[in-house]
Amino acid sequence: MGNDCIFCKIVKGELPCSKLYEDEMFLAFLDLYPVKKGHALVIPKEHYETIFDVPENVLEKYLSVIKKVAVAVKKGTDAKGINLAQANHKAANQAIPHIHFHVIPRDEGDGLGSWPQGKYEDREMDEFREKIAEHI
Amino acid sequence: MGNDCIFCKIVKGELPCSKLYEDEMFLAFLDLYPVKKGHALVIPKEHYETIFDVPENVLEKYLSVIKKVAVAVKKGTDAKGINLAQANHKAANQAIPHIHFHVIPRDEGDGLGSWPQGKYEDREMDEFREKIAEHI
Repeated sequence: MGNDCIFCKIVKGELPCSKLYEDEMFLAFLDLYPVKKGHALVIPKEHYETIFDVPENVLEKYLSVIKKVAVAVKKGTDAKGINLAQANHKAANQAIPHIHFHVIPRDEGDGLGSWPQGKYEDREMDEFREKIAEHI
Repeated sequence: MGNDCIFCKIVKGELPCSKLYEDEMFLAFLDLYPVKKGHALVIPKEHYETIFDVPENVLEKYLSVIKKVAVAVKKGTDAKGINLAQANHKAANQAIPHIHFHVIPRDEGDGLGSWPQGKYEDREMDEFREKIAEHI
């Protein structure tokens, strides 16, 4: 566990949180700085920086807990939709280096946009496919 | 399976895709309209509209496949970070009603921002916590 990790301190009870759910492996609480009110975070209690560090036995339970929290956020805020989001490394806007899934309630016309989409030229898509697929 | 579902047609081989990975339960391919080149999608082969419809036996394998694809996207594009994103219902900007996780490669200064964050007033955070937690 990281001694200076805010989320580890929350897990250990050294910092408070607005707790929504807890089991042996996971903790869910409200984000202090919500994109929309009701915005929740779901973390494993063990300290893993990114998804690349999370072992199989945690991965296989994580999404089920995220779903459970998403159901509750949707019902509790009467939202019309839910976004899940998760950032790995600073380049992806990860602020706290302890993996966390964001569960964000959404409504029609709430003003939260999507990133603009581009397209591939000529054989570029095949080139990207080949470069990525060789690592799987 | 939805007869008119684009992703079901890809699964059945009726539409082409830039395939990155396939197993018995999941398929990963490049998004035709990438936020950044190398942007991948990971779907279950069965048709489920949102995460709320996905059963436990699929949930428990899904994140491991997403991680596998994320590792490959990061290596194959030489990215410095990875975002995972998943939208449920139109209000959350879900475009195709067959659940898909986005795997998006990121680099410092690539211009993809985060949604602005707000805060709670007075007892508002407790009120949201109570309304959500009662559904878990």
